[in-house]
Amino acid sequence: MSFFASRWIEEPEHVGDAEGGGLPAGFRAAGVAAQIKPSGGLDVGLLVCDAHDATSAARFTRSGVLAAPVLVMQERSRLDALRVIVANSGNANAATGAHGIEVAVATQDAAAGAAGVEPEQVAVASTGVIGVPLDAERLAAGMGRAGAVLRPGGDGDLAEAIMTTDAFAKQASLSVALPSGTVRLSAQAKGAGMIQPGFATMLCFVQTDAALQAETADLLLGVCVRRSFDRISVDGQLSTNDTAILMASGASGVRVAPESEDELRFGEALDALLRMLAVMMVRDGEGAKRIGRVVVRGGHADGVERVARSVANSPLVKAALHGADPNWGRIAAAAGAALPGTAPLGLDIAIEGITVCSDGEGVEHDVEALRAAAAGVEVEYVVGLPGDGAETEVFFSDLSHQYVTINAEYTT
Amino acid sequence: MSFFASRWIEEPEHVGDAEGGGLPAGFRAAGVAAQIKPSGGLDVGLLVCDAHDATSAARFTRSGVLAAPVLVMQERSRLDALRVIVANSGNANAATGAHGIEVAVATQDAAAGAAGVEPEQVAVASTGVIGVPLDAERLAAGMGRAGAVLRPGGDGDLAEAIMTTDAFAKQASLSVALPSGTVRLSAQAKGAGMIQPGFATMLCFVQTDAALQAETADLLLGVCVRRSFDRISVDGQLSTNDTAILMASGASGVRVAPESEDELRFGEALDALLRMLAVMMVRDGEGAKRIGRVVVRGGHADGVERVARSVANSPLVKAALHGADPNWGRIAAAAGAALPGTAPLGLDIAIEGITVCSDGEGVEHDVEALRAAAAGVEVEYVVGLPGDGAETEVFFSDLSHQYVTINAEYTT
Repeated sequence: MSFFASRWIEEPEHVGDAEGGGLPAGFRAAGVAAQIKPSGGLDVGLLVCDAHDATSAARFTRSGVLAAPVLVMQERSRLDALRVIVANSGNANAATGAHGIEVAVATQDAAAGAAGVEPEQVAVASTGVIGVPLDAERLAAGMGRAGAVLRPGGDGDLAEAIMTTDAFAKQASLSVALPSGTVRLSAQAKGAGMIQPGFATMLCFVQTDAALQAETADLLLGVCVRRSFDRISVDGQLSTNDTAILMASGASGVRVAPESEDELRFGEALDALLRMLAVMMVRDGEGAKRIGRVVVRGGHADGVERVARSVANSPLVKAALHGADPNWGRIAAAAGAALPGTAPLGLDIAIEGITVCSDGEGVEHDVEALRAAAAGVEVEYVVGLPGDGAETEVFFSDLSHQYVTINAEYTT
Repeated sequence: MSFFASRWIEEPEHVGDAEGGGLPAGFRAAGVAAQIKPSGGLDVGLLVCDAHDATSAARFTRSGVLAAPVLVMQERSRLDALRVIVANSGNANAATGAHGIEVAVATQDAAAGAAGVEPEQVAVASTGVIGVPLDAERLAAGMGRAGAVLRPGGDGDLAEAIMTTDAFAKQASLSVALPSGTVRLSAQAKGAGMIQPGFATMLCFVQTDAALQAETADLLLGVCVRRSFDRISVDGQLSTNDTAILMASGASGVRVAPESEDELRFGEALDALLRMLAVMMVRDGEGAKRIGRVVVRGGHADGVERVARSVANSPLVKAALHGADPNWGRIAAAAGAALPGTAPLGLDIAIEGITVCSDGEGVEHDVEALRAAAAGVEVEYVVGLPGDGAETEVFFSDLSHQYVTINAEYTT
């Protein structure tokens, strides 16, 4: 089965799964167990790019409460020339004050020394429980052991080492046919809870052996993040730690020049990759059985955005999705709540192509067909607002008993 | 036990439970089963004020999707001179188009004829499923039967007739000692889900035999709603039907003059009554086992409001509350998400008086004491933001398996 296993994500014709998997040329990775996670699973990941002239780009959460690694990267790192990523799960290193900053800085310094790069070329990323001091010794020991086992096929271990409540690892290893030659594109991501972008709310590391100018990497990552991780929600909760990093080794010798056909094709591949990873995060949304996509059209940009978020984050809509209950009144209520003072609002609502509400009024429809459609694994809602000109979408998971179980007992 | 059974609501000294219960002088009520609810329970309620010069005031939801009864009342009713309330549960009469409007108008006309008042003196209110046509004949038949059994002690039936997913009826019958004499104050309310005020998100009918000018009723209801139903959330979902109505018969002969000590005392009683009803709605929040109160201080008015809503509506905070898990990192994350771009944010967080985070950093605390405090039925969170001058509070319920069960199977 192709990596692009959602009807909502079109696989570009020039993109396919890379034979044999693994990382693009110029990259090595590893993941080890360092006892930061109580479970004893892999919890420290390391990625190294061997190309001296590698380029990169990064995006971070917009939360007012930033984890130490995010603060340190924003203040200290050269985001356009990253060569190393040190990531850990089991501890977010957030709300950890000066000690947390010290651990992140010391991690950069130690990794730089071991890899032979500058400290500001080291990315640090953490995910896990907030407000608990991160054990610097365990992290350092894990990093040291990971450095000893770096390999081109280590992406799977890296992907596993950043998992928290994720039920499955999220990774891709793709081949991308550009006019100037074929390049590789790989990614490792995590995310299942505390997911609502204001943008990312997860970790995502992307590698390519294409040669990209740093400005191109930044442009493409920015655009693609807005169309992927910015468009998903598990629980409407913006994280303190979200980090997305794109690194380009150039080892393929294929140069992606600005405003070229190569850039267009590479961008399409990156876009499909990040959108599919985003859908995978929603599909792995804590406790999720079904996922939804809400498309909102009409009105103006601010209005469609507010309605889409309101629907995607409504616990009533999400619980109904879970129960395969096509209770569209909750969609109407969520839309109305997002647009106060606009009554009477001439809403249109369709579920899986079946119109249930037109111009604000329920319409007769095939109840059995609707019920069957609502029981699918992917359910699509289209909301029409008066006027036209704007359109957006949000992917979201359902609200299940399992979500409650996971989150009622997270630290206990 | 007093009606004021929450440590968070102070019972004013001049307020007590009314001996014998029931409605204030000048009011009669009834509730009947009209087969609008599939359960066969009471589903049509009627309240009549016999005083020709009664005054009133009302407040409604601010949703852009307004139920037909709300639209009709806003466009047609004399909100300062209401004499009759016809309320039904089991059907919200929302997103029901022209037919829904016709039913609401016909209800006003029929009730007016029966009670000998003008149609614009009849309030209509509905609650229940959205988007399903309301059966006009059943409602009319129920109203007719209710009219035949109106009585001063019918407030309990009225309260029951407006219940939907409520686990218990919410009503009060109070005695209020004013300087000019003793008056009665009663209320019937419903609300358990689709609860987040922008303001009310529920139905609440309040009666008094004090004599109030309509302007006084409007002023007091407005202020007290902002301090009560505006400060609660079960699920962050603004309803299409919220309605709060205060009616004054004047039958006690005690006049509450503007800016008098009587007005102050009456306002205190109304304030405590509505705040207690609001807490009862949260306590009856669908599936709720525990309820929380988040107090946010510091910063500015907009900031404390956003942080309080973000914490109260965070499914992660709510699930942790349910599990008695004092996972304060989620409170930090919710606060940070509400204030993007302010990092590093010097947050203080205390749970039940135990400081767990100071100036953005976790601090050592008595873990066992915290765990015990988090297991209470009412849990208080205090969040401090940098600066001072603003303060607000939101009461909220937890997120339980039962909430999911209720809402995954609401219409199926």
